[in-house]
Amino acid sequence: MTIYSRRAAALSASLIREVAETGMKMYDIIPLWFGEGQWPTAMPAIKAARAALDHDHFYQPNSGKPALREALCDYMNRLYNCHVTPPSITVTGSGMQGLMLTAQALCDPADKVIVIGPVWPNLAESFRIVGADISFVHLSAHQGRWQLDMDRLLGLLGDDVKAVLVNSPNNPTGWVMTQSEQDILLSHCRRNGIWIVSDDVYSRLYRHGRAAPHLFSLASPEDRIISVNSFSKAWSMTGWRLGWVAAPPELEATLAQLTEFNISCTAGFIQEAGLAMLTDGEPEIQQLTQKLADSFALTQSRLSALPDISFIQPDGAFYSFFSIRGMTDSTRFCKSLLHTAGVGLAPGRAFGPEAEGFVRLCYAQPAERLKTAFDRFADGYRAAL
Amino acid sequence: MTIYSRRAAALSASLIREVAETGMKMYDIIPLWFGEGQWPTAMPAIKAARAALDHDHFYQPNSGKPALREALCDYMNRLYNCHVTPPSITVTGSGMQGLMLTAQALCDPADKVIVIGPVWPNLAESFRIVGADISFVHLSAHQGRWQLDMDRLLGLLGDDVKAVLVNSPNNPTGWVMTQSEQDILLSHCRRNGIWIVSDDVYSRLYRHGRAAPHLFSLASPEDRIISVNSFSKAWSMTGWRLGWVAAPPELEATLAQLTEFNISCTAGFIQEAGLAMLTDGEPEIQQLTQKLADSFALTQSRLSALPDISFIQPDGAFYSFFSIRGMTDSTRFCKSLLHTAGVGLAPGRAFGPEAEGFVRLCYAQPAERLKTAFDRFADGYRAAL
Repeated sequence: MTIYSRRAAALSASLIREVAETGMKMYDIIPLWFGEGQWPTAMPAIKAARAALDHDHFYQPNSGKPALREALCDYMNRLYNCHVTPPSITVTGSGMQGLMLTAQALCDPADKVIVIGPVWPNLAESFRIVGADISFVHLSAHQGRWQLDMDRLLGLLGDDVKAVLVNSPNNPTGWVMTQSEQDILLSHCRRNGIWIVSDDVYSRLYRHGRAAPHLFSLASPEDRIISVNSFSKAWSMTGWRLGWVAAPPELEATLAQLTEFNISCTAGFIQEAGLAMLTDGEPEIQQLTQKLADSFALTQSRLSALPDISFIQPDGAFYSFFSIRGMTDSTRFCKSLLHTAGVGLAPGRAFGPEAEGFVRLCYAQPAERLKTAFDRFADGYRAAL
Repeated sequence: MTIYSRRAAALSASLIREVAETGMKMYDIIPLWFGEGQWPTAMPAIKAARAALDHDHFYQPNSGKPALREALCDYMNRLYNCHVTPPSITVTGSGMQGLMLTAQALCDPADKVIVIGPVWPNLAESFRIVGADISFVHLSAHQGRWQLDMDRLLGLLGDDVKAVLVNSPNNPTGWVMTQSEQDILLSHCRRNGIWIVSDDVYSRLYRHGRAAPHLFSLASPEDRIISVNSFSKAWSMTGWRLGWVAAPPELEATLAQLTEFNISCTAGFIQEAGLAMLTDGEPEIQQLTQKLADSFALTQSRLSALPDISFIQPDGAFYSFFSIRGMTDSTRFCKSLLHTAGVGLAPGRAFGPEAEGFVRLCYAQPAERLKTAFDRFADGYRAAL
């Protein structure tokens, strides 16, 4: 008998963390490896949490506070022109937890799941932990843009498939699924009874509008779509651990029970912080997207100017995912770069074997710091090859 | 193909919640159904969280803040006279989450797990969700005390068993495993390579000393023991969602990775609240145990005086789990009692089929309120039969 579970034995260490652990022990590294901005959370959340700490010390309903579930419906309905009601909403202790609950709700061991990659490894890993059989369809870069081969995706989505996982805007590439691609995917999945799990945490970090195209704009609440979202990115609340799932109302009791057995509920005062951001936090999102637009412009101009680098245009999220001619081992490159440039990036290999040859840079940084990082990178990246 | 997972389809609604949902819609019910005290969290936690909210907005290490892991080692080593070091500690977003991480780390589908019951249903359910094959050994009441049939337990613990789950002090019965029973269990499990998962959330709510006997007082850090604990009960922090796991150091990386894929980390400002309680919260535990001693004395005198009720002495936790002659359907009884007495209890059936005929009462209540509850109960319980 194995000592641990096969599930545990099959886990592999994150290559991003492998680079970061090395870099965090070094002096004067500019870390651009994680998906986290440098800006603190805005005051509405802090004030609401502090006030709630007076009294909000007790268990909460599994699915979340009624007021927050209601506010999340209003938020989504305004933003995506949909008709979500509170039974669709489960408040979670992070987007990550929303994915794990979704995986537990949908998949038994050996269930087939298709994932559009390259993608944040945790998205597929949560489904792998419950035993799902994962296959990838990979985006590819053509003429400076990331593109999805829709025929290839639909070809894999037979009626023996349980779910397809979509992350748009995509981490790491910044690829965004168009509304017409969503329409084709939804029609196909309806015909074949396939769940669409949509990781929407970068929904508001869209370079061409208030929010990226969303499946809910096309769907009815009964469609087999589960949208997993988070306060982490759009509201700069990574450390607060607050997210939500929007699912067909028929899943309400199942998700509540799974929440009971995973974490029981999310802290009430953190839910109050989320509620305050939905009420008063829209200007914060505007400010963040303006800062990100400036950071993106700088990133584009600096990376495009460097020889041997293929800059690819992202449409959302806050990363640049680029390849470097002659780099064959992205993990080794990122470790060398710590020494030759003092800049910390995430290796492409972390996002799947097809993403080898790429690196990811999170540009959610104040301009001065980002300029210094690019100065250092320009001086040192060739030496790291 | 099933629409959801078989795992999700097999979940059953909590009978405690079924009674509570009915009662929460009624007027003037005294709810004694959940395992939660009526007292708010003490100031050290609130102050620490408020201060940390100034700046503590970012991702934390998967396993928890180093200072908190260190403080948890000091706390356990002082209390249990053991030698735990930080690699043994994983900070979790509740005791419940610690159980789920443990289940994921240890068990594959069909792995055999033995549980000492009756017990809080979530303990076994977290292992059932990962596919484990669960069997129970049941405590029985003899001469007014709960007792474990150790021969029967050891007889089930063959070398084909992956883990045994022990909750001592036990919810719902208040049973406490003695140090000599722990010694026998540990020796047996060592010989057969069986993990002991010890749900220790009521460790400090022990009626005969500072802490209930703990396996760590007998074990080395390398023994296959996983202690799951929580700030919820001893520090009145149910709504904060903070717990920890203490496991052999060889499991550190596995638990960190599973944490990454379940919730990534626990909020930093909540960890600061826990750290403050470890530093300054000991008087709060003393005050709580004094209040619980008073509540217990009242509970014992009032229940013992009632006809047809078999009061059984608990040694820890904050429940009375008693049987009522003539009650054959505890769920129906608890629902009737809402109407006949205005008091909300948890049905024994929620804790397993063998616990039918019992009800659980949480006595963690201020004296005046508890007196009113017993007045009402004495007047109305016969009518609910």
